[in-house]
Amino acid sequence: MKKQIPDKVINRLTLYHCILKDFILEGNEYISSKQIAKLLHIDDSQVRKDINLLNNSGKSRVGYIVKELKKSIETTLGFAKDKRAFIVGAGNLGMALAKYDNFTSYGLNIINLFDNDPDKIGKEINNKKILDIKELPIYVWQHYVDIAILTVPAKHAQTTADFLVKIGIKYIWNFTPTVLDVPDEVQVWNENLMGNFLQFTYNLV
Amino acid sequence: MKKQIPDKVINRLTLYHCILKDFILEGNEYISSKQIAKLLHIDDSQVRKDINLLNNSGKSRVGYIVKELKKSIETTLGFAKDKRAFIVGAGNLGMALAKYDNFTSYGLNIINLFDNDPDKIGKEINNKKILDIKELPIYVWQHYVDIAILTVPAKHAQTTADFLVKIGIKYIWNFTPTVLDVPDEVQVWNENLMGNFLQFTYNLV
Repeated sequence: MKKQIPDKVINRLTLYHCILKDFILEGNEYISSKQIAKLLHIDDSQVRKDINLLNNSGKSRVGYIVKELKKSIETTLGFAKDKRAFIVGAGNLGMALAKYDNFTSYGLNIINLFDNDPDKIGKEINNKKILDIKELPIYVWQHYVDIAILTVPAKHAQTTADFLVKIGIKYIWNFTPTVLDVPDEVQVWNENLMGNFLQFTYNLV
Repeated sequence: MKKQIPDKVINRLTLYHCILKDFILEGNEYISSKQIAKLLHIDDSQVRKDINLLNNSGKSRVGYIVKELKKSIETTLGFAKDKRAFIVGAGNLGMALAKYDNFTSYGLNIINLFDNDPDKIGKEINNKKILDIKELPIYVWQHYVDIAILTVPAKHAQTTADFLVKIGIKYIWNFTPTVLDVPDEVQVWNENLMGNFLQFTYNLV
């Protein structure tokens, strides 16, 4: 069984990963926990503790070896594992996510978008075709894809979720400001933007 | 001094708030911790514990009074406090956030967007005008706005952040997949989409 990594640590590890990518672009070979900690305004003992959870061997006297540490994070968090998904709702947010090429380096492969708007169906965005939502049941069956990214307007969120559940979707990444009522066997991850924002402003503003 | 509420609880409280809004729309007067817990697939003792952190008096034998509980959450998390912000980067994500009217009910007031693209400058999105990024220094000074929502492409994230720091911005809600290097007195909230997604998929897929 793999080691359990707490959510907060996973979140920080992906931020370390962003930093490591920048360090590689800048041609740096080593990085210290202090350098990472300074950029994130956190304690460097926290950084070392997080990195100790990885199977990372790339530690030298002058710091972590950037490329090896990056690789360790990728292995531990399963970046290489192909996670196929589609977007439901080709509005601005759906479009923004479809254009976000950065996802693929984390193993998230968005293959298509779905919408019910005839003006949108058939168009392409970032090499991903927008398909008719009516085609989704057969599509899911043909493409073995079980992650749906939900970006429809809030008022259609629950009915769309009901439809997704009915056709066998098991994971919903929910960007709508709605709590979806789904059966226990369906996993929903609420991308709770306002919750995140209020965490940010609660203590600050 | 106000009671400290942990980030995870703030996040859940905003989800409870979404549920309460739906309950009001459906004409329900009461809600139990069990009903909230069931929708979020969490334990109802957790829900009761979270609600106990609020100054909520609206508890009856048949459950919490929906409207009062909603009001308690709003008061505790400071929804009424006006949080003025602007968006930097009028791409798909910036547009999506500008269109997201739901923000205002949480006190987040996005007043304008900024971009450097002449084709975008002058246009309006959801009654918010897109202005020339060059106007930002004087704008910030005139409008007393200190929250910037950063939605520029990753490759421009750091230079834009440097510019924001220079003109006195104190809070940056960062939607770019970049860790920004800013001075200690500037607060950055990383909307770490991939971190969130990997928390979701780490244990599941």
